[in-house]
Amino acid sequence: MRKVYLDHAATTPLLPEVREAMLPYLDELFGNPSCLHDWGDAAREALDTAREQVAGLIGASAEEVIFTGSGTESNNFAVKGLALAQQGKGKHLIVSSIEHFSVLHSAKTLEKWGFEIAEVPVDEHGMIDPDEVRKRIRKDTVLISIMHANSEVGTIEPVKEIATVAKENSIPFHTDAIASAGTIPVDVKELGIDALSLAGNQFYGPKGVGALYVRKEVRIIPLLDGGIQEGGRRAGTENIPAIVGLGKAAELAKENMAARVKHLSHLRDRLLTGLPERIGHVVVTGHPENRLPGNASFCVEFIEGEGMLMLLNSQGVAVTSGSACTSRALKVSHVLIAMGLPHALAQGSVLFTFGIDNSEEDVDYVLEVMPPIVERLRQMSPLYAKFSKTGKGGA
Amino acid sequence: MRKVYLDHAATTPLLPEVREAMLPYLDELFGNPSCLHDWGDAAREALDTAREQVAGLIGASAEEVIFTGSGTESNNFAVKGLALAQQGKGKHLIVSSIEHFSVLHSAKTLEKWGFEIAEVPVDEHGMIDPDEVRKRIRKDTVLISIMHANSEVGTIEPVKEIATVAKENSIPFHTDAIASAGTIPVDVKELGIDALSLAGNQFYGPKGVGALYVRKEVRIIPLLDGGIQEGGRRAGTENIPAIVGLGKAAELAKENMAARVKHLSHLRDRLLTGLPERIGHVVVTGHPENRLPGNASFCVEFIEGEGMLMLLNSQGVAVTSGSACTSRALKVSHVLIAMGLPHALAQGSVLFTFGIDNSEEDVDYVLEVMPPIVERLRQMSPLYAKFSKTGKGGA
Repeated sequence: MRKVYLDHAATTPLLPEVREAMLPYLDELFGNPSCLHDWGDAAREALDTAREQVAGLIGASAEEVIFTGSGTESNNFAVKGLALAQQGKGKHLIVSSIEHFSVLHSAKTLEKWGFEIAEVPVDEHGMIDPDEVRKRIRKDTVLISIMHANSEVGTIEPVKEIATVAKENSIPFHTDAIASAGTIPVDVKELGIDALSLAGNQFYGPKGVGALYVRKEVRIIPLLDGGIQEGGRRAGTENIPAIVGLGKAAELAKENMAARVKHLSHLRDRLLTGLPERIGHVVVTGHPENRLPGNASFCVEFIEGEGMLMLLNSQGVAVTSGSACTSRALKVSHVLIAMGLPHALAQGSVLFTFGIDNSEEDVDYVLEVMPPIVERLRQMSPLYAKFSKTGKGGA
Repeated sequence: MRKVYLDHAATTPLLPEVREAMLPYLDELFGNPSCLHDWGDAAREALDTAREQVAGLIGASAEEVIFTGSGTESNNFAVKGLALAQQGKGKHLIVSSIEHFSVLHSAKTLEKWGFEIAEVPVDEHGMIDPDEVRKRIRKDTVLISIMHANSEVGTIEPVKEIATVAKENSIPFHTDAIASAGTIPVDVKELGIDALSLAGNQFYGPKGVGALYVRKEVRIIPLLDGGIQEGGRRAGTENIPAIVGLGKAAELAKENMAARVKHLSHLRDRLLTGLPERIGHVVVTGHPENRLPGNASFCVEFIEGEGMLMLLNSQGVAVTSGSACTSRALKVSHVLIAMGLPHALAQGSVLFTFGIDNSEEDVDYVLEVMPPIVERLRQMSPLYAKFSKTGKGGA
């Protein structure tokens, strides 16, 4: 059976070049970079190189890059660390309603510590209006955290405009760029961003490593206390093999970005166009133009996403029905609900995310296997039976 | 030139079997364990197996093991998470004065949040008296965190007795076992421990992964908010290759522990005896009997540790002068000061930590190169010149 991995938003495979770069650090170059001897020196040089590579990907200076253990850690660090560093000035922060849970739940934790949170809504395409951000600014607002792109529906947000709003009001602006950095061009200086999260396993680098960019002048409170690693901002022995892998992945992403974007957009558009031609009652979710190149997200009426995933998996196709981090909770996506989709329709969510190894044949295979799967699931659906009889009940 | 790595407290190399176990997860088995498809299933099975292996090493149940990104994260999570979970009952906690900075600085952060910290002193061997812990217990004490063994001086603490004191007073007891778990037998049930930190890179597993054992009935507040990984207690995509490596390293540590302890103790004792025979004015630090099998720590009078490290490194020998996490800060060890060593003597700290690949020949090489290094450094020391003239100034 054909095996087609279309869940790159959940995690990407390692590029062979990335793996090759990592292997010596799982072997003889195992030193701890804090150590004052040859083993430590080799590790420290690798750390410095990787920091330059990651900085190069996002237009930052090396000393503005802090390595973390995951994208989730980067988001926790940013939201909690930036808010706590400013709490003398106020305890109000602004996020969007479609942030990843690592931002939203970090904000909830701050709420328990006396902060107030304002949630900016999105339109039906998952797009945030910078004016809606502006409206929520108060004198005691100390942080704005709005994602660069949403991994579930692919919508790319106007972060440059939001950064301008933040800057006009002298409020630090963090963006979760985990879904976008390494995939589309991201330049922190050009966008005017104060802090930015990214993760290795979103662009063919390893799991277990992320980074947080923090602009030089911006103060942040550490999340992990202890040793003086990462300029005293993130304690713990550095995960050198993973950091080396992240650096290499960043370098390759920068080099090959244009070609990757072209390839992924082509596959995405083939599916975005092809699927609704083959299946009735399918809604494309996310923004029609401003969307991540590899993201093709849909809601299929009258069925549940999980059934679709299972049957697609039995045909060798790996997809998801929302965010990987919560897929096992089997809850309806908070992103789709925030976009105003009816609950029943949101339950039929299916997300295809392409990677650089995918081909047109992969798309065509999906286009071939999807119609009978959808048909089979609909035959079991009481909602569809009702709709077929009355012509009512669809979205 | 002979290369002798004697800095296993800073980090251990990967065992070949551990690396082999990890490699498939850096390759085709790259899935995210949260995903409901074949790629996710393979990752989830690996996660389950590793959890059983780590639980098996410390006598815990699998569901009591939470994977983290480092030993430092485990300690931060334990100290902050356990204290915050209990803050309704009180805001007082007890630590020892020789804890790792990931515990001490986490406690300092809690202090900023209104907690009070009591520090238990140690004797000249770095040993903690359980009665000194008992004396500091108050009605509002909500956490006791005392390390199992100190990585700088090797002293193994009476954690079973301290756990009993904690239990008698119904206070949760956390132990930082990063230096001991995987090296000497640690059984959480037998020791009566509520929470325990360990790290992969301390027993031939990978960097970038640690674990926190939390006993079933004990409540903890997450440090990383977001997805529902690790039973909702630690968000973030799991670092599967590193977790698999930690599991394998735990399995091997359990199997080979007795032989490893015997080998390391032999090398340690050869150096602990041999060095003072060859160099005058050398003090062995740490406990004479209750010490980690691979730990040989000294203070050499009239010289600075950093000079010794540099010259040993030029002879191919890697050692450290304290904790790796702070060695680049070039500060005198807080552990040695807490043990009552004079500041000048503590500056001459040198720590040899053996690993399973070291041999008697490695010890003999150190015994050969150390005397001329010490002699050379003493010739440059004004304190030594004074001492040579007057016979005064030694410790």
